[in-house]
Amino acid sequence: MADLKGYKGKSLEFLNKNNIEIGDLIKIIADLSYTGILMPRYETSQDSHIVLKLKSGYNIGIELEKIEKIEKISSAEKSLEEESVRKTNSDLPKILLLSTGGTIASTVDYRTGAVTPALTAADLNDTVPEISEIANVDAEVLFSEYSENLQPKHWIETAKKINGLVDSDYKGIIIAHGTDTMHYTSAFLSFALSGFPIPIILVGSQRSSDRPSSDAAVNLLAAIRFAVNVDTNGVFIVMHHNDTDDAIACHFGTRVRKNHTSKRSAFETIGDNPAFVINEDKIMRNAAKEFFTTEQFEPKLQIDTKVALVKYHPGYDPKQIDDLIESGYKAIIFEGTGLGHIGNTMYNAVKKANEKGLFLGMTSQCIDGRTRMTVYESGRDLMELGITPLEDIIPEVALVKAMWALGNSESIEDMKKLMLQNTASEFTE
Amino acid sequence: MADLKGYKGKSLEFLNKNNIEIGDLIKIIADLSYTGILMPRYETSQDSHIVLKLKSGYNIGIELEKIEKIEKISSAEKSLEEESVRKTNSDLPKILLLSTGGTIASTVDYRTGAVTPALTAADLNDTVPEISEIANVDAEVLFSEYSENLQPKHWIETAKKINGLVDSDYKGIIIAHGTDTMHYTSAFLSFALSGFPIPIILVGSQRSSDRPSSDAAVNLLAAIRFAVNVDTNGVFIVMHHNDTDDAIACHFGTRVRKNHTSKRSAFETIGDNPAFVINEDKIMRNAAKEFFTTEQFEPKLQIDTKVALVKYHPGYDPKQIDDLIESGYKAIIFEGTGLGHIGNTMYNAVKKANEKGLFLGMTSQCIDGRTRMTVYESGRDLMELGITPLEDIIPEVALVKAMWALGNSESIEDMKKLMLQNTASEFTE
Repeated sequence: MADLKGYKGKSLEFLNKNNIEIGDLIKIIADLSYTGILMPRYETSQDSHIVLKLKSGYNIGIELEKIEKIEKISSAEKSLEEESVRKTNSDLPKILLLSTGGTIASTVDYRTGAVTPALTAADLNDTVPEISEIANVDAEVLFSEYSENLQPKHWIETAKKINGLVDSDYKGIIIAHGTDTMHYTSAFLSFALSGFPIPIILVGSQRSSDRPSSDAAVNLLAAIRFAVNVDTNGVFIVMHHNDTDDAIACHFGTRVRKNHTSKRSAFETIGDNPAFVINEDKIMRNAAKEFFTTEQFEPKLQIDTKVALVKYHPGYDPKQIDDLIESGYKAIIFEGTGLGHIGNTMYNAVKKANEKGLFLGMTSQCIDGRTRMTVYESGRDLMELGITPLEDIIPEVALVKAMWALGNSESIEDMKKLMLQNTASEFTE
Repeated sequence: MADLKGYKGKSLEFLNKNNIEIGDLIKIIADLSYTGILMPRYETSQDSHIVLKLKSGYNIGIELEKIEKIEKISSAEKSLEEESVRKTNSDLPKILLLSTGGTIASTVDYRTGAVTPALTAADLNDTVPEISEIANVDAEVLFSEYSENLQPKHWIETAKKINGLVDSDYKGIIIAHGTDTMHYTSAFLSFALSGFPIPIILVGSQRSSDRPSSDAAVNLLAAIRFAVNVDTNGVFIVMHHNDTDDAIACHFGTRVRKNHTSKRSAFETIGDNPAFVINEDKIMRNAAKEFFTTEQFEPKLQIDTKVALVKYHPGYDPKQIDDLIESGYKAIIFEGTGLGHIGNTMYNAVKKANEKGLFLGMTSQCIDGRTRMTVYESGRDLMELGITPLEDIIPEVALVKAMWALGNSESIEDMKKLMLQNTASEFTE
């Protein structure tokens, strides 16, 4: 059976009849003449079009009934361009690129219909020719997952891989990553590998490489420029800074959040400017920011995921907290309202959780600003019931930190100490 | 026993000895001479200071050991200024001010130490003398709660109170409200009272009236100006627009979020400019915005709170979904990642919830932007498992809407229809 993912009804019949598969280079005579690669379709699409990717990079839909003639020029395998020979220059710094999947690594999807990452070093040099002028990039595929499917076990595997490279001659490590949970991964690596001697840079793209507005190449190039030119350690996320192609932001891995579903500048540093702004060859540092001062590298690679993130809201049933206690959770990170509050209907459940020995930390669903639990009676009551305010840490980062702190502590007291210690710039001054 | 809330140790002893209570007007001779009202203290404070509110509005702490002499000028009751006679002008439009509590209504706290709202009409005219020039304000106390303690039952009570005023001669209804959950309340009123003939305006303050930077008066005045001068219906939140005192924003009640814990301009319209900007006497309308077009007022005042808000994250245990099903929840609003995704570890639990007849709606934890579940395989899988993408509704608003839609529907199918219908500008075009 031919590979015709997503095609159905008339269009499926038409393609089968003409013996054409996804990935084939084809020529179509319709109102005009088109040459391009047959693309897969979404299951939910109509059945009266086929989709072609033109050499320019644009995808077009062509109505079946307008097609006068269709002709296969070469089949899927052959239409993949020959791998270019990788240029190396031993004078250039070495960079390691680890791919975990995501939009940035899904270039080939649309040619073959398969979800395999395309990020070999050769692909890279093809996509972004400038790279071979500034660095020797080794590339390695870790996973091929959209980031919504990445789990703590993937964080651990990534951290272990990087930890093994502590004595390598790489100038920096770049991780190609889906954008959905990139800030969760960057937070984990920030804690687990705090003090790692070279920068670890996560990079993604909001639009895939086959779209004219793709940010894959610019973001990747900026990440490599940053790794090559800036002497720092720490974990960063490198993505578009604004809606132009001019500036790329480099965010601290613990202070960044995906704040827009689709914009290229979706990632924002919370409560500050980004750590660096990369503007072609000019890299500007956020002067107000202290840099990572951890001198010693002591990896802490354990994790315990028995942590719940509870977003409080009017009507929240405290029985949900009882269920968490019952299920053996060891810590709860609250996303409270305002300065760090939850309703007084929750007090009994909180008291019980505290008595059972759970760590209870408070963050704010406002996202921006700082918890301050001494201003109002509610906050003071909650502190007396055992809730610890967690400064201005971002709720998602607090969750990841709690999983990490729990995994690397002997007791809840030890964990609490870790939670209050500024390990990787997760609290601002 | 004297009322000395928050004082302990040495300072408690000192005040008891001198027969002074909170709220007393006192004179102190120390390094300088001070006259002011004794304020309550936080339980967690040190015991070596007492706190005085000066006539200027500033609070100062005075060290016990520096006090040479302390003298009571008048006791708590008498130090409350005499109520001024309320001016009325029958030519001015009538406004109703309902107070629910919160910082805006806690002026008296610091004078008496008790948490009772100060918002009588007379207090108002005292605080904001300009009000009596533009409107006749009737004031009524509904509750005296900080908004983190408000629950759906309070929303219902507020909605019923307003619903009873459908034929009144008020030009607008203003609700003084704590800021923590103001946007949840505004969302409920937007749905429950969609089409109500006059504007309903929630107003709060981020800093209490006794602080020099308080936004209580400006926000309240702007809300009254808006009610008096603009012919519209709908539910709005009126708060500082930016960090100056110049501009006050008027946000749609369903498109607004508290995005900062402490800034006066904490409230922001998501994905657009505010509906109006109030700049003293000039009120500018957001021209791009369609106004509420509901012609008929058909209140829908029921609610069913069996709705959970689930923020997905790596490491989320799908057993939590099983617990929700077990506990009889009828709907789940997911805060997914990116365009509206949750990990494939969740698929079985989602499938089960769908089979049990729960409504499953998707929003994005990015907050800004729009869910689009047809772009990636994950989204398409989730739609096939029964999850409904909810456009660009804000997660908190989706939760409130689901409680409301559930309460006012005969079946889950009816509820789903309501969820997808743009009732109160909760979806942007």
